[in-house]
Amino acid sequence: MIQMTLIQIDNYGPWTVTPAPRAEADLQILQSELYADLQRQFAAKGGLVFFTRFDNMLAITNNVDMDDHRRIQKSIGNRYPITVSMGVAAAETPYEAQRDATAVLQNYGGAQSEERKEVLAIDGLVNKEDSFVQIAHIDINGITDSLTDIIPAYDTSFIVNRVQHFLMKKLIEKGSLVFFIGGDNFMSPCNGLSPEGLLKIVEEIEDETNIALKAGIGKAPTAEKAANLADLALEEIRGGVTYDLVHVMNKK
Amino acid sequence: MIQMTLIQIDNYGPWTVTPAPRAEADLQILQSELYADLQRQFAAKGGLVFFTRFDNMLAITNNVDMDDHRRIQKSIGNRYPITVSMGVAAAETPYEAQRDATAVLQNYGGAQSEERKEVLAIDGLVNKEDSFVQIAHIDINGITDSLTDIIPAYDTSFIVNRVQHFLMKKLIEKGSLVFFIGGDNFMSPCNGLSPEGLLKIVEEIEDETNIALKAGIGKAPTAEKAANLADLALEEIRGGVTYDLVHVMNKK
Amino acid sequence: MIQMTLIQIDNYGPWTVTPAPRAEADLQILQSELYADLQRQFAAKGGLVFFTRFDNMLAITNNVDMDDHRRIQKSIGNRYPITVSMGVAAAETPYEAQRDATAVLQNYGGAQSEERKEVLAIDGLVNKEDSFVQIAHIDINGITDSLTDIIPAYDTSFIVNRVQHFLMKKLIEKGSLVFFIGGDNFMSPCNGLSPEGLLKIVEEIEDETNIALKAGIGKAPTAEKAANLADLALEEIRGGVTYDLVHVMNKK
Amino acid sequence: MIQMTLIQIDNYGPWTVTPAPRAEADLQILQSELYADLQRQFAAKGGLVFFTRFDNMLAITNNVDMDDHRRIQKSIGNRYPITVSMGVAAAETPYEAQRDATAVLQNYGGAQSEERKEVLAIDGLVNKEDSFVQIAHIDINGITDSLTDIIPAYDTSFIVNRVQHFLMKKLIEKGSLVFFIGGDNFMSPCNGLSPEGLLKIVEEIEDETNIALKAGIGKAPTAEKAANLADLALEEIRGGVTYDLVHVMNKK
Repeated sequence: MIQMTLIQIDNYGPWTVTPAPRAEADLQILQSELYADLQRQFAAKGGLVFFTRFDNMLAITNNVDMDDHRRIQKSIGNRYPITVSMGVAAAETPYEAQRDATAVLQNYGGAQSEERKEVLAIDGLVNKEDSFVQIAHIDINGITDSLTDIIPAYDTSFIVNRVQHFLMKKLIEKGSLVFFIGGDNFMSPCNGLSPEGLLKIVEEIEDETNIALKAGIGKAPTAEKAANLADLALEEIRGGVTYDLVHVMNKK
Repeated sequence: MIQMTLIQIDNYGPWTVTPAPRAEADLQILQSELYADLQRQFAAKGGLVFFTRFDNMLAITNNVDMDDHRRIQKSIGNRYPITVSMGVAAAETPYEAQRDATAVLQNYGGAQSEERKEVLAIDGLVNKEDSFVQIAHIDINGITDSLTDIIPAYDTSFIVNRVQHFLMKKLIEKGSLVFFIGGDNFMSPCNGLSPEGLLKIVEEIEDETNIALKAGIGKAPTAEKAANLADLALEEIRGGVTYDLVHVMNKK
Repeated sequence: MIQMTLIQIDNYGPWTVTPAPRAEADLQILQSELYADLQRQFAAKGGLVFFTRFDNMLAITNNVDMDDHRRIQKSIGNRYPITVSMGVAAAETPYEAQRDATAVLQNYGGAQSEERKEVLAIDGLVNKEDSFVQIAHIDINGITDSLTDIIPAYDTSFIVNRVQHFLMKKLIEKGSLVFFIGGDNFMSPCNGLSPEGLLKIVEEIEDETNIALKAGIGKAPTAEKAANLADLALEEIRGGVTYDLVHVMNKK
Repeated sequence: MIQMTLIQIDNYGPWTVTPAPRAEADLQILQSELYADLQRQFAAKGGLVFFTRFDNMLAITNNVDMDDHRRIQKSIGNRYPITVSMGVAAAETPYEAQRDATAVLQNYGGAQSEERKEVLAIDGLVNKEDSFVQIAHIDINGITDSLTDIIPAYDTSFIVNRVQHFLMKKLIEKGSLVFFIGGDNFMSPCNGLSPEGLLKIVEEIEDETNIALKAGIGKAPTAEKAANLADLALEEIRGGVTYDLVHVMNKK
């Protein structure tokens, strides 16, 4: 089972314009430093955070227990002008886990409620024996040669966003999520998705967009290890160890 | 005229997997802290950076001169395990400015070249009299009530990404860019786009996606001031000062 | 027993002036961000880092095991232009622990050796049953009224430094260390020091410098908990719960 | 003339223990990140900040005008749970400048006043023609070989603190300040001090403590440039270009 945490900044929208709109540069710094900070703290326990919408972040949190969540939450409250609430849930697929994590937090009030503050709402935690995370690391074949070094930077960014859009649309149907992680890279928490299922999606996207993708899949008890195995699988494709466009590595 | 800078991490892809793939959490922290850091330094001169693809960032840099660029570049080189190269150009529209900024940097070698390092390639800078930045701050009407507090977090994120995709597709045709800045917010450098032109796009997107957008537009000599005026214009729509979905504020 | 870790930037001195002296502002940012970063990572396991000389930091690391040290070390190497080596040791007193932690690292080569890099040298780790940390939180009585709000900022700083000098001189004889932690606050890892012993020092310093100190002492299995109890003890003195200048709180 | 700014966290002491003492690790992270942040922002205008007591920081701010101060102050207020007030003054010596900067801020209320918040109190600013900063960069001769690689880390730190104590005591009499900047390095804003005067102090300290120091002095219109020249002067001593223990470089 995969455990996911929704991290939501409390009453953020109103704060950004009170008493007057705050400088956009300051908000961007605040958001990206908050994300980096949470990443560092969840990573200390083998978790992995995705920036998602910045005011709402989704994280894979197998091995991160209630006390860890509480400590991280307090640590943010001590060092930022805002606080965060969290919802945690475990399920067979990433889609279900984030859905339940959202629902359990929504029970405590809206994101812009003036009362809700530093809530930690736990629907369920994964125990050690059942802990299982499957991650696919997906990238675009040869993007530097074919795009980055040739066309304008924004056009490349446009193409990458288009690929993300297609990936999101197709993977959500399989109960899998996908997050942009920079460059031409996507990370997909995908418990329950078969390599063949992912290959089919990769092939469909090539047909529809003419962009060739490849994917390494890792499976392990924590996000940290699954992501690492996914990276190694991707390296084997890059290195020519396999001709498959989707390649799996399991934790030995 | 608008001045834009392309900031590109030198030879980043190969570095992330040398000697073995680096922990994804560390790369995420590195990228978001680098972005926050550049934002803070460009903001000190009235500039505004967009994270774009993180390894390639686009910034509006009116009022940031060659010495400032050089200082920022050195400061990054002194504090990170990577270096950055930059291309700078000025043009009538944001699309042209980033296109020329990319081209002037591409002349110096590829993003994954082992030789190219800490290049500062300047195609042109805007002088004070000609400096003009137009920014639209676009958001989704009532997203908290209609989406964030009701549907799963990932589904909201999916919808926001879809809106971004439509915005990018339509604005690029007008020579305008659009960047996601967190939550349900987008910022569009849009010199040359008329309020009517933007309103038409907003209406088209509502027709096609059933998502209602609104936009504040600001015009000023620097990105900082233009963004601030765009925020104020958006606040006036929120506050009911105007019933227009696109509202403009000029620097007095 | 207390476990301490010496964290040393590898070959830092030469790096700061290669190829030419790097901007002092950049070095200051690098050092303080590195310290904050290490603090966050060690704190995730109940540890506490003192900035010491910035290029050499001492930390109380009970409950932080070999894998944690390794993970932190790699994480720094992935995100900074420098790497760190560490020595770890456990002993009855803080002085002995840092002495042995230093010695075990010195075995691997000098701080400015070009060969030594990312060494993790472990002399010994504390196991759970023997884990014990005693910390005194010491501050200056009424500093805001008597100094900060009246005399020049530098003069206050001069007096605080003088107090630190006296505290260091007297506490080292008891096998205790003392670190400045900002404001008028000092934190002293002091396993083996009796409350009476500390009171005597506080009284001597008042005689010699005319500066009145007070101290809360906390005892617990980790630095995090001991520091928290020391804070609570200090609050009880401030709140008038006790008239003692040295007050102890034990973990129940 | 040298311009100095006192940066003081508003009502910080009470905040750190409200409603209960906050985790020491969090406070340390907050303080050092705040310092790094201010450093980055002042450095963008050629200034230099010293961490001093962390809740009270002194900065050399020649070339940083009122608008810059205001922008930095707002930027901190937007991203931290605390705010800062500032006092600014200009004088012939650093001691006088910080004294007047403190006094002008004290006029607005105490550091722990609940009313005083985000005050910017300006006693005077230096204009371009009169701007002059003299900085000495002082370090300990051969500390790595003689101390760091041989004796325990804390003992080295004790010796460095002792040297600081002597430097502070002797330099304050000349109207000069001295700040620890990490390792075995001190930076002394010292407008008005002659090289002979500094050499005498270096020699006295060697007599009294048996620790040999050396110093590079730089003179320039901003702290950034003066510090850089001081570094270069120190490098010339290290490189054997001069046998003097105190060596001066002027901006050409």
